[in-house]
Amino acid sequence: MNVDIITIGDEILIGQIVDTNSAWMARKLNDEGINVRQITSISDDPEHISETFAETAKKVDVVIVTGGLGPTKDDKTKDTICNFFGTQLVADPTVLENIEELLSKRGILLNRLNRDQALVPEGSRVFQNIMGTAPGLLLKKNGCCFIFMPGVPFEMKYLMEFEILPYLRNTFQTTTILHRTVLTQGLPESMLAEKISAWEDALPEYIKLAYLPSPQGVRLRLSARGKELSLMEAGVDIQIEKLQNLIQSNIYGYDDESPAGSIGKILEKKGWTISTAESCTGGAIAALFTQNPGSSAYFKGSVVAYSNEIKTNLLGVENNLILNHGAVSREVVEKMALQACHVMNTDFAISTSGIAGPGGGSDEKPVGTVWIAIAHNGNTTSQLYNFGNDRERNIIRTCQTSLFMLRKILITL
Amino acid sequence: MNVDIITIGDEILIGQIVDTNSAWMARKLNDEGINVRQITSISDDPEHISETFAETAKKVDVVIVTGGLGPTKDDKTKDTICNFFGTQLVADPTVLENIEELLSKRGILLNRLNRDQALVPEGSRVFQNIMGTAPGLLLKKNGCCFIFMPGVPFEMKYLMEFEILPYLRNTFQTTTILHRTVLTQGLPESMLAEKISAWEDALPEYIKLAYLPSPQGVRLRLSARGKELSLMEAGVDIQIEKLQNLIQSNIYGYDDESPAGSIGKILEKKGWTISTAESCTGGAIAALFTQNPGSSAYFKGSVVAYSNEIKTNLLGVENNLILNHGAVSREVVEKMALQACHVMNTDFAISTSGIAGPGGGSDEKPVGTVWIAIAHNGNTTSQLYNFGNDRERNIIRTCQTSLFMLRKILITL
Repeated sequence: MNVDIITIGDEILIGQIVDTNSAWMARKLNDEGINVRQITSISDDPEHISETFAETAKKVDVVIVTGGLGPTKDDKTKDTICNFFGTQLVADPTVLENIEELLSKRGILLNRLNRDQALVPEGSRVFQNIMGTAPGLLLKKNGCCFIFMPGVPFEMKYLMEFEILPYLRNTFQTTTILHRTVLTQGLPESMLAEKISAWEDALPEYIKLAYLPSPQGVRLRLSARGKELSLMEAGVDIQIEKLQNLIQSNIYGYDDESPAGSIGKILEKKGWTISTAESCTGGAIAALFTQNPGSSAYFKGSVVAYSNEIKTNLLGVENNLILNHGAVSREVVEKMALQACHVMNTDFAISTSGIAGPGGGSDEKPVGTVWIAIAHNGNTTSQLYNFGNDRERNIIRTCQTSLFMLRKILITL
Repeated sequence: MNVDIITIGDEILIGQIVDTNSAWMARKLNDEGINVRQITSISDDPEHISETFAETAKKVDVVIVTGGLGPTKDDKTKDTICNFFGTQLVADPTVLENIEELLSKRGILLNRLNRDQALVPEGSRVFQNIMGTAPGLLLKKNGCCFIFMPGVPFEMKYLMEFEILPYLRNTFQTTTILHRTVLTQGLPESMLAEKISAWEDALPEYIKLAYLPSPQGVRLRLSARGKELSLMEAGVDIQIEKLQNLIQSNIYGYDDESPAGSIGKILEKKGWTISTAESCTGGAIAALFTQNPGSSAYFKGSVVAYSNEIKTNLLGVENNLILNHGAVSREVVEKMALQACHVMNTDFAISTSGIAGPGGGSDEKPVGTVWIAIAHNGNTTSQLYNFGNDRERNIIRTCQTSLFMLRKILITL
């Protein structure tokens, strides 16, 4: 069974928004063993929409369309849908009821735009959307099943989880795909590829490997396709074990794990706590730790010491140290980490101090200069980096590198 | 002139990565007045690639393709390209030289995979990629110009900025598109639409309006198309002025501005400073402020008080207050904000305390319960919210709502 995803909306084609909906849907469909053949983003232009629908209908069993179902005037999709399927708009009383209920909860009166949202193409199957005013719709043409959803992410997600995926599960036979991802850090793609090439060549036919570079490192994705999930799982597990023997120290986690999440697991298991003292990362490392559910078990807090005054007053870094060495120095960053452990009473601390840019650089310490320190038991490990000219990238790389430094220490303890 | 963007790679179709490259390229192309007709993500399958190339070549002047040019074995794109264009791979000495230079800088020896990257389809124009080992390539078929780039974002960005866009600028005549976006908060899409409908109906023919809902609020995008940029700018400015008169208090900024960035501008102008005391947001508000270049002019720091111990020790929130009212309470969150102003010596402070979930909820204070306070001059404004069950959304909405609360106060001062 093949599915195409089509996203309608000029905002994607002018680059104003990133299409995160499609990635989310593709992932959910893959989890069900449904193959996504293609993702296509098209404009609001009726001709473009009709042409794409006609071409796509010839190639796949199901087409999932998002966008173009909001309450405002830039949404012409419904008329185009009616033309394509040779039908017309009719009022759906259950949709209208849902809209009225939703709006009354929010204390809003029904207006003409909302009333128009209760119009659906005649002959369509309606999926109620309790999260918003636009329903999900299903229409068929020449044996191909078109499913329409609004583009607002949490409405689309609700409809997918509770209406569309159950419908697809019941209606279509699916084969099983199993994906496992091994997350690596510290080896560039080509070196990693050489190191594991014999293992890769010996992979069984039904397991496919892909290299996915990312700011966190290279992710290795193993995909198995078959019928017996338990056999596939066992087969993939064997391959991952072999891989672990080759590159153990470069693996920081699996699948959805984040570097901060995998560190959190180690800390929680050992009963250790952590804090951060952040200058150039401005709270971003703390935010990475606290994204993870249950992080309060090991993450106690952070002092974001963006100004030197706070480095002194809250962390107790002596003013003289800053005057003599500068805020971006080994001396200051080590003291920040030690003091974070001390004032927040934690086993470990990460500290950062650097020049994220675009301003603040000098010949001696250009933009991108970053010191990172890890403190534990009164000792520190620190390192100087230069991550380049881009502010956003400097912040991200400082976060990721500090987590990598910490992880290297943790796994030796 | 029309351009299509094609992204090659199974990782997008299984939802493992979000296609941010296409949005970035689309934006850059639009800035040049080049219209992006469609964005298509396809698999690594050679047949799918060839079929898509053939169909696309009939529809547009230029096709920009990313992905499939990395050093590892999952990249079969080059062979497929050769078949499609009826050519063969030949070694390009300048590409090999670039690869050798890059690797020697990183202290890495050339391996076979790297050497293969110096093979290019015979007859292609080569764009040197000084950021990585895979070059940009240009080939023509039936009058359609295909441009190939690696999928690694910073390599693609370098090639676009310094090679591809200059080439397109010199080769094709382009019309001008002007986009301006008005950023609004506090009005749902349908209410906003009603409020501005007369203005919208009176827009001149050459200006198009689109509603773009987002977690930060609804963005209104005005797009003008024409030849004289200065006339278009003047025309759009007039419309934005009219819009300001209708919804002034709901506009928080324009174009790329973020809520934190627009607040930063107000603070900097007035010479005010700010700090945060964050519990459930875990440093995310501080990270939003410090994403902005120059934020050290107004943002001094944050105490991320994830544990109660830190609320007491670093912020000086009395232990009794926490025991009597709970950490998630008006009393504690107001005290956190007041103390943040005090210990970090700032004019304003934002504080948050809530239950982000999935754990930690109770009947009285379910998951999603959040208190936010703003302190200024010894006074506080605080508010209780419930943002629902999703941890990630609770954190994002707490951040955005706290910034909205602060902005409402700032614009009255």
